[in-house]
Amino acid sequence: MRNIKLTIQYDGSRYSGWQRLGHTDMTIQSKIENVLSKMTSEKIEIIGSGRTDVGVHALGQVANFKTNSKMTTSEMIEYLYKYLPQDIVVTNIEEVEERFHSRYNASSKKYIYKIYNDIYLNPFLRKYTTHISEKLDIDAMKKASLFIIGEHDFTSFRSSKSKKKSNIRTIYSIDIIEKGNLIEIIVHGNGFLYNMVRIIVGTLLEVGLGNMEPENVNYILLSKDRKLAGPIAPAKGLYLLEVEY
Amino acid sequence: MRNIKLTIQYDGSRYSGWQRLGHTDMTIQSKIENVLSKMTSEKIEIIGSGRTDVGVHALGQVANFKTNSKMTTSEMIEYLYKYLPQDIVVTNIEEVEERFHSRYNASSKKYIYKIYNDIYLNPFLRKYTTHISEKLDIDAMKKASLFIIGEHDFTSFRSSKSKKKSNIRTIYSIDIIEKGNLIEIIVHGNGFLYNMVRIIVGTLLEVGLGNMEPENVNYILLSKDRKLAGPIAPAKGLYLLEVEY
Repeated sequence: MRNIKLTIQYDGSRYSGWQRLGHTDMTIQSKIENVLSKMTSEKIEIIGSGRTDVGVHALGQVANFKTNSKMTTSEMIEYLYKYLPQDIVVTNIEEVEERFHSRYNASSKKYIYKIYNDIYLNPFLRKYTTHISEKLDIDAMKKASLFIIGEHDFTSFRSSKSKKKSNIRTIYSIDIIEKGNLIEIIVHGNGFLYNMVRIIVGTLLEVGLGNMEPENVNYILLSKDRKLAGPIAPAKGLYLLEVEY
Repeated sequence: MRNIKLTIQYDGSRYSGWQRLGHTDMTIQSKIENVLSKMTSEKIEIIGSGRTDVGVHALGQVANFKTNSKMTTSEMIEYLYKYLPQDIVVTNIEEVEERFHSRYNASSKKYIYKIYNDIYLNPFLRKYTTHISEKLDIDAMKKASLFIIGEHDFTSFRSSKSKKKSNIRTIYSIDIIEKGNLIEIIVHGNGFLYNMVRIIVGTLLEVGLGNMEPENVNYILLSKDRKLAGPIAPAKGLYLLEVEY
């Protein structure tokens, strides 16, 4: 069978997340599977690199599926572009070796979190950024982020719903970039626990708002206590940026 | 009575345009009037600098209203921010002299039109740009725009629904700016006929797509024949950028 790899962008605003669900077809995975099943006349199941939560966006989600279809990858991309809703766009399709697995073979991921930091909400960015009206202390946030970079036990930074056996992950880098009143936080790591990026951002925001000292972040990591870290930052600011293999 | 001037940003996607209508309250004017009437306990009518059509956005619409309210302008701005929907944001309020009139006193206006020029649609910009998949010839569009700048009879560039007596307007400048695959067209003029910006853009797009020579635009202007100009460009790419007094 052929193994086909998709790269996908989506605006998560309207959807109940990535993962197929029984009670609704308003998930990214269902929308794509339905179009692919129609396209191939096969029952297609796609494997995503990982789930994204309700309201989370993607600029470079990766998924793969097996098929006996004889269509070329460019015919597939045109078909998907025509039949998928406008808020889900498959930007690249390539045929990969049969054992390629979007989730198991992912070596690292990058997420970007976008914050709109100005007194009033920007009406055009209300679904695509988190709005913080108080001026953030970016230097303090950068200082705090240095404690998170590296290999750590991230028990304090994962949602209690997480079922992973080991909570040890490596964060390669955290870049905090100011573009006028838009602040972007790019987190690159070898893997992420449930809600980990949003809790990292929520904690950095506490530091940026002056509610927490940058040095506290080190203590939070060592404590392995979720209650000490900041709240989960809203989904609408988060984008899965890239999956590396 | 006090005369209050508002500067307003809105995402026009959900609305039936600026102008109050009998059969729906989903217009920008109604939404603002309803909140202002509640705020002042008076029946407020606002005067906009001009209408914007269904789906058109604004970054700097201006409106004014008369009131006997004793609230400060900062109290007003906070009240509006709290009670208006998130896609309408009043960014500035000032008290102006009693004879100031948002429409009659406007000396010039700037509009910006945003085009996303790449093979596939960008899911995040689908409501905020017009998508053109064929590569546009920007140099040809710039050449064509030079014929439009200046004082002209814009009969060829106004919708037949236009009821204005004179079709003579002055366009001060047209700037066409490429930012990667985003193309912005900024049109500055002393006044605009019905659908005039969208027909100017529709015509420039015909030139950019190679369906029309830049020199044709001069002939279209002289012909005073709407049928010779390009189609009306979609509303979702258009923003009222600034009103000058």
